[in-house]
Amino acid sequence: MVEATGAWAVDACDALTGPRFSDHPDYLFRPYLGPAHLNAVEQVAAWMGEVGMTTRIDGAGNLIGRYGEGAKTLMIGSHIDSVRDAGNYDGPLGVMLGVAVCAALKTAGRQLPFAIEVYAFGDEEGSRFPAPMLCSRAVAGSLTLGALEVADAQGVGLAQALELNGLAMSRFTGARRDPSELLGYIEAHIEQGPVLEAEGLALGVVTAIAAQIRYAVTVTGVAGHAGTNAMALRKDALAGAAEMMLAIERIAGQGPSDLVGTVGRITAGPGAPNVVPGEVHFTLDLRAGTNEVLHPAEAAIIAELKAIAHRRALGLHLDKTHALPPSPCDPAFRAMLSRAVAAVGVAPRDIVSGAGHDAMIFSPITPSAMLFIRCKDGISHNPLESVDPADADLACRALLNFIDQLEAADV
Amino acid sequence: MVEATGAWAVDACDALTGPRFSDHPDYLFRPYLGPAHLNAVEQVAAWMGEVGMTTRIDGAGNLIGRYGEGAKTLMIGSHIDSVRDAGNYDGPLGVMLGVAVCAALKTAGRQLPFAIEVYAFGDEEGSRFPAPMLCSRAVAGSLTLGALEVADAQGVGLAQALELNGLAMSRFTGARRDPSELLGYIEAHIEQGPVLEAEGLALGVVTAIAAQIRYAVTVTGVAGHAGTNAMALRKDALAGAAEMMLAIERIAGQGPSDLVGTVGRITAGPGAPNVVPGEVHFTLDLRAGTNEVLHPAEAAIIAELKAIAHRRALGLHLDKTHALPPSPCDPAFRAMLSRAVAAVGVAPRDIVSGAGHDAMIFSPITPSAMLFIRCKDGISHNPLESVDPADADLACRALLNFIDQLEAADV
Repeated sequence: MVEATGAWAVDACDALTGPRFSDHPDYLFRPYLGPAHLNAVEQVAAWMGEVGMTTRIDGAGNLIGRYGEGAKTLMIGSHIDSVRDAGNYDGPLGVMLGVAVCAALKTAGRQLPFAIEVYAFGDEEGSRFPAPMLCSRAVAGSLTLGALEVADAQGVGLAQALELNGLAMSRFTGARRDPSELLGYIEAHIEQGPVLEAEGLALGVVTAIAAQIRYAVTVTGVAGHAGTNAMALRKDALAGAAEMMLAIERIAGQGPSDLVGTVGRITAGPGAPNVVPGEVHFTLDLRAGTNEVLHPAEAAIIAELKAIAHRRALGLHLDKTHALPPSPCDPAFRAMLSRAVAAVGVAPRDIVSGAGHDAMIFSPITPSAMLFIRCKDGISHNPLESVDPADADLACRALLNFIDQLEAADV
Repeated sequence: MVEATGAWAVDACDALTGPRFSDHPDYLFRPYLGPAHLNAVEQVAAWMGEVGMTTRIDGAGNLIGRYGEGAKTLMIGSHIDSVRDAGNYDGPLGVMLGVAVCAALKTAGRQLPFAIEVYAFGDEEGSRFPAPMLCSRAVAGSLTLGALEVADAQGVGLAQALELNGLAMSRFTGARRDPSELLGYIEAHIEQGPVLEAEGLALGVVTAIAAQIRYAVTVTGVAGHAGTNAMALRKDALAGAAEMMLAIERIAGQGPSDLVGTVGRITAGPGAPNVVPGEVHFTLDLRAGTNEVLHPAEAAIIAELKAIAHRRALGLHLDKTHALPPSPCDPAFRAMLSRAVAAVGVAPRDIVSGAGHDAMIFSPITPSAMLFIRCKDGISHNPLESVDPADADLACRALLNFIDQLEAADV
């Protein structure tokens, strides 16, 4: 039974686990358009229905629950897909808090001058197709040419995956919302970092989402027999990649604390224990709060990768797959969120988000803001993710206060 | 028409390709006891017959061509099976050179005080049944209990495959030769590496087949969000593994040229571009001509891996999956081969074989030696395998010189 509390939102996230809601038997993995995603949509839609929301699924597979009526709509969103071996709260908590907020409004018999739509986005993590935030980009109308021509690691294309879920590629961009109908976008999310916990604060107000660059790196050497190729004569793509990974770690580590560089995925071919690797693919994810920090680090890494490849006579191909500028949150929404946080007894704390979020997709088209919720030990993308239900209660009350302010502002 | 030259041997290998001699339409694949193997046996037997050799097929499906008579027998062997998508020379060249040598002896009307038997082994690569060198082990009498209880990827057991070729499992071990009847074993083979080419030498004298150790290495850190985990606070299993791979490369590179260390396979989990890797698995393949070189390198690598794991607060687990002692070649045979190589105008170059060969199966029971032939770019197990016919001519003449010395030694 849905309750109008943050504690219920936490419980609901915990309920979205186990075999029905994960596509891996040993851990939580809920990729976009997999069976677990479909089941999660069904379950969340049921909860939305319980609090009188009308539900629909748009062309991109997003679940939307609408509360109340009005010419304009406030979106409350987050995602219900997950990374591999995920925690329970990254994404779903923001959706469940949206449902809890609507439950509170219903309990109070509130009629607002605008509608609220809670969006449960199908893809934010990019854990299935190599292109994150496909679903929020569809809604914001910012999909770029060719963005939908993607396939997963098993070679299943997006079109095929949509079809298996009863969706048609031709309707994907139909998920787009007309910005003139929108009041704004607000998203609650766990911090996924250690700052709020270190300062003893349950909530934080996001000022901007960090700039982010992603590369697909290919290193080419010469495959050969592991027994017969003398060390001095090798062109070992994996040894070269190892040197590159250490260079990335070193350069990122030398910058300010908001600069982070990560190699999260690697494959080495042909991939036999007795064959020197001839080709390696790895990903590079580089982020910083400002372009002034990000761009010099990017240039230093590229220069170093090229130098390593040159010295080792390896081929190097860098494919920039993703580049996002910093996304500042809307000043008026930020101010209202800060007042809301103060109203529930938490000292307002501005914070930069090192992680990307759907909110950054909406900031170019409608006023957008984010509320961060403290998480245990700053751990995320990990089954050890943990949120205090009391913190989630404060978040729920702050969101309601934000809605009160928005109503009072007579928008 | 068989000619008494290495160039003919190269041509003969090239002739053993195409639909008749391959079980795959697009590339060379001649697994043990397949139709292509049967056809190859028939063709090679015909060539042996042309030079007056008497042929037979033993219980393990090896083709044997016998030249001359004598109480004792010098074996000249190699294999005629292949890996998938193989080159033409890995194996067959040694067999064809044996036939060319006998052709030369016949042309010269030579009667030796010993017989020569050219062995075309049916299985060395283990590309059909998961147990390499079944056929030479049968001849050497070193099959271990249960070694014949194998099946191929289609579930066809060895017994059934033998039957389809008119052979009986009950006769398999009858392929065994009594060591007291043998003078020794000699094998010519492409180097499958770049060392001879780099030094401008057509031939090399193998001192030993390398000792080999294999480890499965697991590195454990803490997975986390790539955007929110400051560099200084990470326990990145992949960055740690990268440092370990460079340490392996450095330690192997500091040893003598026969010491080789290879990381051929790696996986990093959870394996998403935006997640700091929490667990990495990689393989380590370490080889050297002697235990005196291998064991200190192994110890140094393990110590360094432990130090890296300790410094980075990572977990480390090392599982030794494979250990093979070195197979030294017979000193007297090596000395004769060196003189033979010098006699044909090539500076004798001792070389360790990093790859396994049938010769290592015979060294425990009879004097054994190997002659390496330069191959282009060190490439093997690949259709680009290439041998200069002039090099094969030198090999043919060196083998004849070796036989002259053996005759003169009055064995």
